[in-house]
Amino acid sequence: MKVCKFGGTSVASAEQIKKVAAIVQSDPTRRLIVVSAPGKRFNDDIKVTDLLIELANAALQQDAVEEKLKNVIKRYESNANGLGLDHVICEVIESDLRKRIAEAGSVADEQLMDSLKASGEDNNAKMIAAYFDSIGLKAKYMSPLEAGLIVNDLPARAQALPKAYDNLSVLKDSQEIVVFPGFFGYTEEGVLRTFERGGSDITGSILAAAVKAELYENFTDVDSVFCANPKVVNCPVEIQEITYREMRELSYAGFSVFHDEALMPVYKIGIPVCIKNTNNPSAPGTRIVSVRESNHSPVTGISADSGFSILYVSKYLMNREIGFGRKLLQILEDENISYEHTPSGLDDISVIIRSHQLTSEKEDRIVKRVETELQADDVHFRHDFSMIVIVGEGMNNNTGLAARAATAISKTGANIEMINQGSSEVSLVFGVRKEFENKILQALYNEFFALSATNLK
Amino acid sequence: MKVCKFGGTSVASAEQIKKVAAIVQSDPTRRLIVVSAPGKRFNDDIKVTDLLIELANAALQQDAVEEKLKNVIKRYESNANGLGLDHVICEVIESDLRKRIAEAGSVADEQLMDSLKASGEDNNAKMIAAYFDSIGLKAKYMSPLEAGLIVNDLPARAQALPKAYDNLSVLKDSQEIVVFPGFFGYTEEGVLRTFERGGSDITGSILAAAVKAELYENFTDVDSVFCANPKVVNCPVEIQEITYREMRELSYAGFSVFHDEALMPVYKIGIPVCIKNTNNPSAPGTRIVSVRESNHSPVTGISADSGFSILYVSKYLMNREIGFGRKLLQILEDENISYEHTPSGLDDISVIIRSHQLTSEKEDRIVKRVETELQADDVHFRHDFSMIVIVGEGMNNNTGLAARAATAISKTGANIEMINQGSSEVSLVFGVRKEFENKILQALYNEFFALSATNLK
Repeated sequence: MKVCKFGGTSVASAEQIKKVAAIVQSDPTRRLIVVSAPGKRFNDDIKVTDLLIELANAALQQDAVEEKLKNVIKRYESNANGLGLDHVICEVIESDLRKRIAEAGSVADEQLMDSLKASGEDNNAKMIAAYFDSIGLKAKYMSPLEAGLIVNDLPARAQALPKAYDNLSVLKDSQEIVVFPGFFGYTEEGVLRTFERGGSDITGSILAAAVKAELYENFTDVDSVFCANPKVVNCPVEIQEITYREMRELSYAGFSVFHDEALMPVYKIGIPVCIKNTNNPSAPGTRIVSVRESNHSPVTGISADSGFSILYVSKYLMNREIGFGRKLLQILEDENISYEHTPSGLDDISVIIRSHQLTSEKEDRIVKRVETELQADDVHFRHDFSMIVIVGEGMNNNTGLAARAATAISKTGANIEMINQGSSEVSLVFGVRKEFENKILQALYNEFFALSATNLK
Repeated sequence: MKVCKFGGTSVASAEQIKKVAAIVQSDPTRRLIVVSAPGKRFNDDIKVTDLLIELANAALQQDAVEEKLKNVIKRYESNANGLGLDHVICEVIESDLRKRIAEAGSVADEQLMDSLKASGEDNNAKMIAAYFDSIGLKAKYMSPLEAGLIVNDLPARAQALPKAYDNLSVLKDSQEIVVFPGFFGYTEEGVLRTFERGGSDITGSILAAAVKAELYENFTDVDSVFCANPKVVNCPVEIQEITYREMRELSYAGFSVFHDEALMPVYKIGIPVCIKNTNNPSAPGTRIVSVRESNHSPVTGISADSGFSILYVSKYLMNREIGFGRKLLQILEDENISYEHTPSGLDDISVIIRSHQLTSEKEDRIVKRVETELQADDVHFRHDFSMIVIVGEGMNNNTGLAARAATAISKTGANIEMINQGSSEVSLVFGVRKEFENKILQALYNEFFALSATNLK
């Protein structure tokens, strides 16, 4: 069986939900359907989740909620009408929302917020199950509470507990198609908790792992994952197959197609994932797999991300001091700062950090501690760097790949500030000044993909 | 004034000591002379220090010492004869050695060993001072005890205390040329302690810093430092000027001309160093300075060293775990292992370690701890790697240098296993399989030096 997750744009309107039904109908192995809340129908549209946040804030501040409630209901009504459903489903949804709002004051604020946000997925699942049934697709809505999607007690970033997988595994025996809301689960005490950003992807991945699906299909609004950012590179090559770890390394630098934590459950037991387009379901999409056939290019994708800072520390004879690097990382950890890379010379070390974690106070404290506790000769921060990541299975065995990449970068006139290669067998990271980022991404794309792209057209 | 240090081959024989005297005589600013013990006069010769170690071992094991003592004395007698000195100096030396041997049993074994080893420099300084005097160069032997070269209490790796510099500073006012033995000092309690390997270089550097010399001349048996290992590269280019930090980065990979700790005292106050040849004093030598004029090549030197292992650790979502790298380094620190570099991907990190620090038991313990304490998905060691280091001031601003280097390496057919750039502004490190080391060193030399070498010839 296949688990299919449909994202916000895929279930935004009656028209979109009809496409979903057609997709499910076309393949009898699509038995377990995870849905998001209705997303944007057009560019300036407001997502139902955002309407729900407004509603929750009003409820929390004891403001008038009726109009904000109506805004939410109207979206469901419009979909129900378009799908030819009678008004009963909207009454179910309205009563559900009123029940959630009524809890304001008696439950913690963050719990009310989580509950209202999660209602977007929950009620959409009810409506989609009703629609499936109405067109003869035998389906049932399944509540995560009833199904036993047990999570730990971390508001807004809950994680499924092992027993959740046991509980959910029985869904594989369901006679009806199961329509399951994404984005949330319940603690052992029955408190609703939501997953992180991208939470419906997580639900789909958990379900796919629990029922040991043959495939986890993730339907979104693009035909496939591109090998480079299409906002920078014109019509980049589509990736047909990519391994989990290639996908992970690309997600480093904002390849935001798939939330990285979401891959974990399927990665662990090797269930392949397919990213597909609800609006063009016959396109083959991008498959994420454990192992893939090699293709012609050693490079699968190139990503780039800005917003990095470099902490530079030098001290004469640093390399003879056992524990220097560890103590430096401890100082960063004390400030709750994570780091990306630590290139080092003999007498110096640099720490590459995402800049958003820094404040000028934190920087001052870190510099002072490194000066006094580690007696460094020089300590300073530099800002405005970008990281460019070249990813490909087996590129470690491709003699000359680093040379090709470095040559392509140097032809742009940019200076390479950092190179990191040697741990991951599938990635090569270059640090450059932010202003060169797009130019370099284009140059690397030309070097590794331009020819095959021409062939494909 | 200048401080001049003469190494073992420079003071190995009467003939060599005459060259030293001529060098000192030729420049009235050469006022402070540091000498090693007599080194090898020819390839199969035995250094006096090695004869002294044999003597010390005999004394410690209460074996007969007379013959071994005679072997040492014979070397001094031969030099004294060649220098036309009367027998008094040899009697002074013999009586000094007998006094040291007599302490066997009443002092710690390591102290006796240190004392006998240090006598090589100490007695040679006495003889050279006597010779200088005999030819009208007004000179005096200076004992480190009398001069106040106070060190901390670390046998065989003592370090000078700050007050040593104060004590030694008065030597700048000496009316006579001072002949000072290298390699050792005394603790506050008056116990003799030796420096690390290369210890006479350290003494020279301390004296140069203490008297604020205009130049620290380090006389050895080569005209200059080569830009690459002459055992691998045929007739490499001689380095005329190099900065302290370039010298440091080159010392990474066994550029053994100068002991790295020895540079510290002069580096700290910016005293230039000149490496010169006792056998060809008119050659300009290699100057080590704080800042140097840029020359045509962005690369100053290339060094290579084998004997590296790589510890590889991977874990899905590692990059989200604050403290992972720090905990990993802590485990290595618990085993007293220092590391060179830590290239990292998103879900993995490699630690480059000098292999001599590892045993199979240590490796097993580390792998087990990383698996259990850090719950890594994969942990293993790989061995037989070499590091190739390209060093040059300002190469950080040289667009395309990494590309040239990587291209030159790839043309050898070697795969680049690791690249580390981005902390030191003066070095770029490539990790490769050991079997490619020499081929790559030659290829990089050809890329960055071959043309200028041709010009120089």
